[in-house]
Amino acid sequence: MRVFGEITGIPEGSEFENRYYLSQYGVHKPLQAGISGSQTEGADSIVLSGGYEDDEDYGDVIIYTGHGGRSQVTGLQVSDQQLSHQNLALALNCQQGIPVRVIRGYNHQSIFSPSEGYRYDGLYRIADYWRAQGLSDFFVWRFRLIKIDKLVDLVVVNEDQPIYGKPKRVETMVQRIIRDTALSSYVKKMYGFRCQVCRVEIRTNTGLYAEAAHIQPLGMPHNGPDILPNILCLCPNHHVMYDFGGFGIKDDFALIGIDGKLFRKAKHIIDCQYLQYHRKHFMISD
Amino acid sequence: MRVFGEITGIPEGSEFENRYYLSQYGVHKPLQAGISGSQTEGADSIVLSGGYEDDEDYGDVIIYTGHGGRSQVTGLQVSDQQLSHQNLALALNCQQGIPVRVIRGYNHQSIFSPSEGYRYDGLYRIADYWRAQGLSDFFVWRFRLIKIDKLVDLVVVNEDQPIYGKPKRVETMVQRIIRDTALSSYVKKMYGFRCQVCRVEIRTNTGLYAEAAHIQPLGMPHNGPDILPNILCLCPNHHVMYDFGGFGIKDDFALIGIDGKLFRKAKHIIDCQYLQYHRKHFMISD
Repeated sequence: MRVFGEITGIPEGSEFENRYYLSQYGVHKPLQAGISGSQTEGADSIVLSGGYEDDEDYGDVIIYTGHGGRSQVTGLQVSDQQLSHQNLALALNCQQGIPVRVIRGYNHQSIFSPSEGYRYDGLYRIADYWRAQGLSDFFVWRFRLIKIDKLVDLVVVNEDQPIYGKPKRVETMVQRIIRDTALSSYVKKMYGFRCQVCRVEIRTNTGLYAEAAHIQPLGMPHNGPDILPNILCLCPNHHVMYDFGGFGIKDDFALIGIDGKLFRKAKHIIDCQYLQYHRKHFMISD
Repeated sequence: MRVFGEITGIPEGSEFENRYYLSQYGVHKPLQAGISGSQTEGADSIVLSGGYEDDEDYGDVIIYTGHGGRSQVTGLQVSDQQLSHQNLALALNCQQGIPVRVIRGYNHQSIFSPSEGYRYDGLYRIADYWRAQGLSDFFVWRFRLIKIDKLVDLVVVNEDQPIYGKPKRVETMVQRIIRDTALSSYVKKMYGFRCQVCRVEIRTNTGLYAEAAHIQPLGMPHNGPDILPNILCLCPNHHVMYDFGGFGIKDDFALIGIDGKLFRKAKHIIDCQYLQYHRKHFMISD
């Protein structure tokens, strides 16, 4: 049985001499694979051990490169990675809010690595994932892991009364974080809080609700700009679908993957380079 | 002009002798009101100053009581609070991810208060809000404020290359966090990832997407249980609407506020007490 979250009796910072002990204690079961998981349940743990040239480790934030496409002989990337198997497992973590245990190995190139053996470094959530051209030019899947702040991110489920600041038994975690910028409000008002794909109006006790979606995402590594030509007004359903590559938008605003065409006000100029970026990095096939 | 977020030159921890200086420095403009904001733009700051009997202060988490319904003579709660004006402003913060400056006053009953004057204690997000029976039996609106973790919660927008761990200019923030539990996955599979309200299927590059919604929310102060009779499978649109009181569910599963009836598998027993809790605490009118 796959155990998600913390392993009882193994606190963060625990050190292990080698992969055999990591496996025996249930922290990371496979002896070779970097990702432990299945594409129906999600991933329960990963080991950072210097296998992939593209990993980036900022401590509380890790850009992790998916599995596959490497030569078994040379270890070099020789073909595109697919969003399947262990990679799909990590993607499921992202969508379903499943935490993953992170273990750093001595051979991982990072100032955060232990000098010997392996160290369990706590739970991370998968904030997002995308397809990128790796250092070797082949497509890889990349996953952004963010360390879980126990107080803020986790829901504490207790038999007794839960008390703030004293998490006891951690069962659950965050999943999807919607970003908002100063311009978001402007775009939503421009469309009267109606989705540019399906025109739905979402009514709540605070009035109409919509989300502003950045076509090319903000922040590293996408660095999409927070400007009007890069923002859409979407309902939550189409926002989820767009972020997770469920549909794309052609340069003429026809939709790919679903029927229809993007509704657009004449004064809302959308820059095609952002639509292209999204198609390249978030759609499985263009 | 209303300034949201940090005030240039006023770092967290800045102290002010009185409300006049708070106002002059633009940290909290109104001299009397506890909430600074408008119901079209949101709230930019609040002062905790012991006015309301129902406030609870856990430091990084604050349960803040809304405005209104108090006697101007005695200061006691004499009627129900409405989700309008300053309260609606705070609700907008929640839905649109707008940060609010929190100032604690010497007269606020909390171990976190300064012993004299007023202190700017940083940015908080409004995690959620609900209607509750206050200590004086009248309905009040309550808002859960969570201190913003700059590294994790904020999107950093820079003119130069953004660098992890070194936030420079903070423009935006989190908005909606979807919680997930071990049971969530079970409920979603039971319904084939189709919404129990509209039956929609949301397709993404990872397969079908749905969200598990707790009818009576988890965690303080709602303390809904993480059990099957308290969970629904919803699409993101209906999840947002349900969480924000856009519709309710009668004991016979007819929908209130929108047409239709909740789709329910025979083996999915839903406990009416949770539906009642939701109607009471999240709908503007039952």
